[in-house]
Amino acid sequence: MNIDQLKATITTIPDYPKPGINFRDVTSLLQVPEALRETIRLMCEPYRDSGIDKIVAIEARGFVFGAAMALELGCGLVLARKPGKLPRATRAAAYTLEYGENTLHIHTDAIHAGERVLLVDDLIATGGTAEATVELIKGVEAILVGAAFAVALVDLPGLAKLSALSVKAHHVIEFEGD
Amino acid sequence: MNIDQLKATITTIPDYPKPGINFRDVTSLLQVPEALRETIRLMCEPYRDSGIDKIVAIEARGFVFGAAMALELGCGLVLARKPGKLPRATRAAAYTLEYGENTLHIHTDAIHAGERVLLVDDLIATGGTAEATVELIKGVEAILVGAAFAVALVDLPGLAKLSALSVKAHHVIEFEGD
Repeated sequence: MNIDQLKATITTIPDYPKPGINFRDVTSLLQVPEALRETIRLMCEPYRDSGIDKIVAIEARGFVFGAAMALELGCGLVLARKPGKLPRATRAAAYTLEYGENTLHIHTDAIHAGERVLLVDDLIATGGTAEATVELIKGVEAILVGAAFAVALVDLPGLAKLSALSVKAHHVIEFEGD
Repeated sequence: MNIDQLKATITTIPDYPKPGINFRDVTSLLQVPEALRETIRLMCEPYRDSGIDKIVAIEARGFVFGAAMALELGCGLVLARKPGKLPRATRAAAYTLEYGENTLHIHTDAIHAGERVLLVDDLIATGGTAEATVELIKGVEAILVGAAFAVALVDLPGLAKLSALSVKAHHVIEFEGD
């Protein structure tokens, strides 16, 4: 499948979750075996010789892409989760929501100084959770090799935020405008 | 790695989430590349020649094992999610919690009559969410080939519940007693 064919497997839901927003739903991509396989292959491609030790995947759709990539790259997987979901001691970083803020957590033993880490999520939009996850990874002095997304909404500030943090981002499918 | 070595990568947290419960935390298994790879290999083993069309994975840790297995088996992946998480029309099934009940949802276009489906989650304990997911799969007249778990708590009624529903379950690691 080429990129246009992959993109066509994503469902756009107009006015969701609120008027004026086009929601890009990757669940319909996951249902197509060839699309899932090819998306994972393309997401992994820049990192095959990067000696990645751990993928840090963001709850919850990030777990899907992160787990498949960890299998493909032969590295470990760390879950970045919302409050109250991890049973042991965690480190946390805050991110801003439309109203208020929330935190993302990783177990304190999940990543270590000097480990080569790749951040993974399904989609980058405003970049709030990605930015918080960068903070979690850099906070333990791990080496953040890059950030990989299945989809980028290129009109939103997420990619620029990562660039401003000197994080090299990679994505497979992009949407712009409406 | 053998099964005892895999089991040793799981962290037990006593008295979590409440006194008397030993919580089995698979996140520490995921962090070890060889453990992740071998667990996925063993979870997939009975299904390599089963012609699985779709894996239905239960939110959220089930997404980890389900996605890696979908890549390995070359099938599609369907997310069974909590209310309000899927953007399009869904089918729902209820399950009982300690106090009250909740529902699990799949998109109405996610699985179809006659498709060969494998249910996947990280762990089977009381079996409430697994039972609801069986209802979702059988409700569309898909063929439920089996249910695969990384971990089974064999003293709890989950495996017996699945057996009573004529669902053939498979797990890699088991814990009994305390």
